Amino acid sequence: MDLNNYNQIVSRANDVQKMWQKVPAPKRGEVIRSFGNKLREHKSELATLITKDARKIISEAEGEVQEAIDMCDFATGLSRQLYGLTMPSERPNHRLQELWHPLGTVGCITAFNFPMAVFAWNFCLAAVCGNSTIWKPSPHANSCAHAMKKIWDEISGDFNDLCIILEGGKDEAVALCQDRKIHLISATGSCQMGKELAPIVGARMGKTLFELGGNNAGIVCPSADIDLAIKAITFSAAGTSGQRCTSMRRLFVHEDIFETCIEKLKDSFDNLVIGDPNNPSTQLGPLISENSFKEMQLSLSNAKDDGALVIGGERLDIESPSDFYVKPAICIVDQIIEEMREETFAPILYIKKYKTLDEAINYQNDVNQGLSSAIFTNDVRESEFFLSAEGSDCGIANVNIGTSGAEIGGAFGGEKDTGGGRESGSDAWKAYMRRVTATVNFGSDLPLAQGVEFNDE
Amino acid sequence: MDLNNYNQIVSRANDVQKMWQKVPAPKRGEVIRSFGNKLREHKSELATLITKDARKIISEAEGEVQEAIDMCDFATGLSRQLYGLTMPSERPNHRLQELWHPLGTVGCITAFNFPMAVFAWNFCLAAVCGNSTIWKPSPHANSCAHAMKKIWDEISGDFNDLCIILEGGKDEAVALCQDRKIHLISATGSCQMGKELAPIVGARMGKTLFELGGNNAGIVCPSADIDLAIKAITFSAAGTSGQRCTSMRRLFVHEDIFETCIEKLKDSFDNLVIGDPNNPSTQLGPLISENSFKEMQLSLSNAKDDGALVIGGERLDIESPSDFYVKPAICIVDQIIEEMREETFAPILYIKKYKTLDEAINYQNDVNQGLSSAIFTNDVRESEFFLSAEGSDCGIANVNIGTSGAEIGGAFGGEKDTGGGRESGSDAWKAYMRRVTATVNFGSDLPLAQGVEFNDE
Amino acid sequence: MDLNNYNQIVSRANDVQKMWQKVPAPKRGEVIRSFGNKLREHKSELATLITKDARKIISEAEGEVQEAIDMCDFATGLSRQLYGLTMPSERPNHRLQELWHPLGTVGCITAFNFPMAVFAWNFCLAAVCGNSTIWKPSPHANSCAHAMKKIWDEISGDFNDLCIILEGGKDEAVALCQDRKIHLISATGSCQMGKELAPIVGARMGKTLFELGGNNAGIVCPSADIDLAIKAITFSAAGTSGQRCTSMRRLFVHEDIFETCIEKLKDSFDNLVIGDPNNPSTQLGPLISENSFKEMQLSLSNAKDDGALVIGGERLDIESPSDFYVKPAICIVDQIIEEMREETFAPILYIKKYKTLDEAINYQNDVNQGLSSAIFTNDVRESEFFLSAEGSDCGIANVNIGTSGAEIGGAFGGEKDTGGGRESGSDAWKAYMRRVTATVNFGSDLPLAQGVEFNDE
Amino acid sequence: MDLNNYNQIVSRANDVQKMWQKVPAPKRGEVIRSFGNKLREHKSELATLITKDARKIISEAEGEVQEAIDMCDFATGLSRQLYGLTMPSERPNHRLQELWHPLGTVGCITAFNFPMAVFAWNFCLAAVCGNSTIWKPSPHANSCAHAMKKIWDEISGDFNDLCIILEGGKDEAVALCQDRKIHLISATGSCQMGKELAPIVGARMGKTLFELGGNNAGIVCPSADIDLAIKAITFSAAGTSGQRCTSMRRLFVHEDIFETCIEKLKDSFDNLVIGDPNNPSTQLGPLISENSFKEMQLSLSNAKDDGALVIGGERLDIESPSDFYVKPAICIVDQIIEEMREETFAPILYIKKYKTLDEAINYQNDVNQGLSSAIFTNDVRESEFFLSAEGSDCGIANVNIGTSGAEIGGAFGGEKDTGGGRESGSDAWKAYMRRVTATVNFGSDLPLAQGVEFNDE
Repeated sequence: MDLNNYNQIVSRANDVQKMWQKVPAPKRGEVIRSFGNKLREHKSELATLITKDARKIISEAEGEVQEAIDMCDFATGLSRQLYGLTMPSERPNHRLQELWHPLGTVGCITAFNFPMAVFAWNFCLAAVCGNSTIWKPSPHANSCAHAMKKIWDEISGDFNDLCIILEGGKDEAVALCQDRKIHLISATGSCQMGKELAPIVGARMGKTLFELGGNNAGIVCPSADIDLAIKAITFSAAGTSGQRCTSMRRLFVHEDIFETCIEKLKDSFDNLVIGDPNNPSTQLGPLISENSFKEMQLSLSNAKDDGALVIGGERLDIESPSDFYVKPAICIVDQIIEEMREETFAPILYIKKYKTLDEAINYQNDVNQGLSSAIFTNDVRESEFFLSAEGSDCGIANVNIGTSGAEIGGAFGGEKDTGGGRESGSDAWKAYMRRVTATVNFGSDLPLAQGVEFNDE
Repeated sequence: MDLNNYNQIVSRANDVQKMWQKVPAPKRGEVIRSFGNKLREHKSELATLITKDARKIISEAEGEVQEAIDMCDFATGLSRQLYGLTMPSERPNHRLQELWHPLGTVGCITAFNFPMAVFAWNFCLAAVCGNSTIWKPSPHANSCAHAMKKIWDEISGDFNDLCIILEGGKDEAVALCQDRKIHLISATGSCQMGKELAPIVGARMGKTLFELGGNNAGIVCPSADIDLAIKAITFSAAGTSGQRCTSMRRLFVHEDIFETCIEKLKDSFDNLVIGDPNNPSTQLGPLISENSFKEMQLSLSNAKDDGALVIGGERLDIESPSDFYVKPAICIVDQIIEEMREETFAPILYIKKYKTLDEAINYQNDVNQGLSSAIFTNDVRESEFFLSAEGSDCGIANVNIGTSGAEIGGAFGGEKDTGGGRESGSDAWKAYMRRVTATVNFGSDLPLAQGVEFNDE
Repeated sequence: MDLNNYNQIVSRANDVQKMWQKVPAPKRGEVIRSFGNKLREHKSELATLITKDARKIISEAEGEVQEAIDMCDFATGLSRQLYGLTMPSERPNHRLQELWHPLGTVGCITAFNFPMAVFAWNFCLAAVCGNSTIWKPSPHANSCAHAMKKIWDEISGDFNDLCIILEGGKDEAVALCQDRKIHLISATGSCQMGKELAPIVGARMGKTLFELGGNNAGIVCPSADIDLAIKAITFSAAGTSGQRCTSMRRLFVHEDIFETCIEKLKDSFDNLVIGDPNNPSTQLGPLISENSFKEMQLSLSNAKDDGALVIGGERLDIESPSDFYVKPAICIVDQIIEEMREETFAPILYIKKYKTLDEAINYQNDVNQGLSSAIFTNDVRESEFFLSAEGSDCGIANVNIGTSGAEIGGAFGGEKDTGGGRESGSDAWKAYMRRVTATVNFGSDLPLAQGVEFNDE
Repeated sequence: MDLNNYNQIVSRANDVQKMWQKVPAPKRGEVIRSFGNKLREHKSELATLITKDARKIISEAEGEVQEAIDMCDFATGLSRQLYGLTMPSERPNHRLQELWHPLGTVGCITAFNFPMAVFAWNFCLAAVCGNSTIWKPSPHANSCAHAMKKIWDEISGDFNDLCIILEGGKDEAVALCQDRKIHLISATGSCQMGKELAPIVGARMGKTLFELGGNNAGIVCPSADIDLAIKAITFSAAGTSGQRCTSMRRLFVHEDIFETCIEKLKDSFDNLVIGDPNNPSTQLGPLISENSFKEMQLSLSNAKDDGALVIGGERLDIESPSDFYVKPAICIVDQIIEEMREETFAPILYIKKYKTLDEAINYQNDVNQGLSSAIFTNDVRESEFFLSAEGSDCGIANVNIGTSGAEIGGAFGGEKDTGGGRESGSDAWKAYMRRVTATVNFGSDLPLAQGVEFNDE
């Protein structure tokens, strides 16, 4: 790691933040609005870059740029809100209120699979909240990062350093985590990564926002609209070649409709158009790397050893030898196997039969990750139970939608090993600010809270 | 550490929580309301115990019980709120909402100096939010803990295990931090403690709420009501013998009023009634331990070595030899000295002159802790600047009030090494729950967010 | 009307409010908490009075007192909230915030059927918000009002005038509505009453909170749990002898289950225990008055004329001749008849068959009132559609619950002729306060919003 | 009034709303975003029209268009929020929540002096909330309305009828107020107008949002930054030729600085550049009409009769004879005179000396209107007291800013005869929606709230 470069970057990011926080938030919002408009202009070329770096199909790549644009508009609106609370004091002539102020510099670590949207989630909120951002993108997606940065530079005037890219890998991530000058670490990646980084930041009492791996399950109930369910499952399990943190990896199907679902799902997988992601009719592009392919094969091999019936999963003979196209795999199991407890970043869907909803929810929750979940049902009692405290233990719980494809208006993130952070909508912006509880005494006396007396006469 | 006992405790706490979360939140609130009423009945005897364990004067001890009572009433109201958000979906026939559910079991680690109130902050919120609590009190204050627990047992029926005491020290704290069955670690104590525990919880991606040390400063401006300021400073700096996390430890006084303030403050300290905390006219009781006394003396000695003018600070010859009564110390310094950067849990107030408000705020913010802060001024521009993003960097910022003595209605906690957690009022309850972002598709189609297309025809 | 008495009452209410608003809101909450505790002590005797005045059965009467108690606890919690917002200004060195202050004196007009709970909804919120209340109860329920007032007097010390009873009828109501010294008119009663009072208050630009009549419908879908639905419909339609503003008055049943539902409902009505409301096993007491009985008979007679099949509805020969006990009536209609469009305050349930949910929702919404509504279904799509913008147009929409029996945690009230007001939970308290949008300039310049320039050089 | 035309307009507005409410709110926000962008393109030409119709100076006219643009961006953000609440039910297996749905058609009545911004406040919120709008602009400003409508038509595709202009005067306003097909009347104008319209809408239990006249006062305290205060007062009192609802009409100056302030204010008024509003250096344009001029002269004449010392106020001999340019008037009074209690829509500033802040606040509050207010002080106690429950009784309270020139982020509106409505920021959007309190029972039992029992066994 080039320490000199690193220090310069941090120093510039800290400096520009001190200027930026003096810009009133609505004016900061106006800059982010311009950023969004510029992204709109370049939407198609940015999408092409995503397809190139992350190998996502065009429609998904465009959707990702759209998500970044949506975040700009959402953050623009937020820039006149960032609401604290005023509240009555228990003491006469006292006023109590809560104010939110910028944190400083955010260290934003992103993964290859959403090379623009996750940055936008963080940067748009961070910026309207008054912070600067040092962005360490995935080494797979540096060109996506530079393209975003270039657009930012075009519209940001004196504030181009509000976003600075720090290329690199683990060393750079660790450096940010150790650095007290980084006031928030927002990291997206594997659970393993999170568990390594969290103690480093914890040792300096730093703030973190982790959005880590998922092991997302679907449940198909007897009352489900099966065709809709199959469509949703196919998109969530096979789409993006299983390389979303919200990809569906496990499926629990009620015994009454198990055979039907398996058949329909096989058909659906068989009909997927796999190939060059630049081709508009393609539904699945290749895996991100040979390594991903190897890990997928290892998982499938282990699954077979544990008794799973594996359908698909093989490499497809498409295009250049450096690309790893695969047939999405279905692994039918009779009981929970060890492989189902881990997130393999590839299109593998483990499927198991269930008898009662309680059983299905237990299966779903019985993993370390807690990101996304889905139920397919048309039964009010099942739907509501799934959303209740005794239902899904994930940060995202969907009814009649797959596990992937969140909207920006809700808070995005998950529980347990997924890291607990929330990005994007609702009050996720609070992670990018510090709260001040302020009490003003405008009287001539000094009454104490809770009726404490401390008189010196 | 008795591992068997520990495991039994965790198991009981987990089990009772599974029952408790089925109790509707308003019914949980009703139980906490009863707890508050029972605390009211026993207020005076509980206060006596605080005086015994923590050596606080009666009025402060009663104020602390009152704070626990206030928390019960506040939590009762919250039990019908715990508001999530509903929000519009970008997709037709979809509904988006945010629900909050219980976490599970909270590990609550408390310090000697607030042996009941900090527990109440945590337990009342944790309970109405649907959680059980394992409480590891300070070894100095086990009897306070058992007294609270006894009252809980009287009113809690089948749910007496909702609060279980785990006596112990560092081993027990570490065990809780390591344990995935503990769903939130809420710890109050020193910054050092926090920095040791945070990485342990981080390594398992657990949730934490840290409320750690402060190094709280006051600023006295030329326009201040000086008599009111002196009264507030005396309470915050000398009160509780300087053993609050919010105790005032540093004071910056404008040069125009410096001499006046010093004189008045010396007078004020000279007039303090120091002695048996059980005596209603006493204002200051003893330090908690001989060790505290030694650390205080070491700090004062170091301060003298660094050129400070030390006034007071000596042991007072009062009562039994095992009690360490001290005269609160004033240390006048010409420049910032190293001792001022640390929190010594004893009544030492470092005082330095300043010329401009910028300078004073820089002094104040230039420590690692970020809990509480106060300005004494009658000038709108100074007051507002102090509360602005460029003012105090603490979680608590007061105007014309000392640094200590918060109300429960605001969120309590601080920034930087203070740990970033918030307890008590505002939306602090969210730390005790998990959030579910739920989207329900009630249509017959499966539109994707961001306009993504994934058609298999 | 005794104008002298009226003026004295208003004057006392205005005066005490000026003192009361100086009491910090959390202290006001403490008084309301005591009020709730005192109501608890007298719960049974208060319930007896409700049974006497309003002829409600004991369990409902006790439930009503419980609702008043719940409101006290809820308002106690609110007394530390009453949250305004802080928000960023677009101008440098400016601070923007929203504060909520008391209104003054509330004129609270209540109906006979909830002689205590509706007062508590209003008074508890009004009081913690810093207002005094002049209560004009229904002439049928003056003794209930005086009983509440007596309890208030016991715990309110100097603030007993915070609640003053103004006995009377229309003249008194009109006087309050005309009076600029009454800062909010909160009136519960018939739509007709609302339409008479609203223009009077409007002519002086006064604030109003109307909670008027309902014409509440239920929809029973093919997937419904029919036994549960019948139970709910029976309670909502026949319970309280149909004298709740939320009583179910219309029922739309899917053709596939129409006959079954009719049979079960007839059975259910036949099994109702009708008699002395003081008898614990009684389910229905008498109508409030002979006049109510006559209006009921007129409605049934009109319905028959319009082709309805009327089952039940006759007077029952129970007890003293001055009590009007009736068999609840079922009116089966083939098409919507005129009588169904009006609220007759008696137990009449109009039932009509439907084919499609759209049709049923159209029936439901096609009345002038908009208070409560219910659907019985186990189908997610139907349930969600019913709750969507295209579903029920009422202020209350329930799924698998009857139309009556709301919890205090939600906002209570309805749309259209029901008056639009909201009482009880959520942010209903805002109706009892005035909002101040405050901007503080703490800089030395005077920038204008929206970039306007107004330079005089 | 052309009734046929009127009915057609209402019918089209109702119809398009039924389509529009099916468009997901974030998509509605996207349309409003486009509207804002189109307004940006035409900003300068729209401003020219405002100058032509309302005779405002260019900078203010551009500021007004900017305000419309800001509203579009704010509403775009809101379109993913419109937050209702989820909250726990007191009953097991029940879920409680609050949803917000569109109202229908908004009747928006606007005044000449903000011919675009007030429409934008209403229309932007109404539209993202799912409503259509019938806009009845001031007859003075029809061309401004048509210019806005033209821009809307350019970007609204099938939804051009979402905004329909209804030209006209009082007859049209009354027609909208009487019409049950108009679901909200949002009216800006004089208090007199409001008092005429409110009873009409009240008689049909319709919803209203009134933003009526002000009689706004400033207070100058001894500690004030006098130069800043004079600048602010000049803008608020003389700017827009006193024709803002927030124009400052009364000024209370502490006796210690009274003479100084009068002198400086006279100088400031003397230096105002009055003339053609199209000239960029102009600060004040003409009054809107001869009638306005006559009313101004009448007020000044009455003031003189009541003993006021009148400085300025005369017509200026500028340009064409049809334009009424005036010198802004200062009226120094020794006691409160009758003229000070009314809003004369012209640049007249009544000034009175005061001794105590209580006295000044009493003067300020002692009028029927309650829109805006300002204090100039650098004293924390005065500033906070002014903002407290015992301070200003207006909807807007500013410190060290004039009474006019609000930002869109806060809620805009006032108390008492000002009508109580709130537009623009904070939760003003709620006025454009209806609230549904929804409870879903997903269990198999039917527990009743408040513990009521109604068993038929």
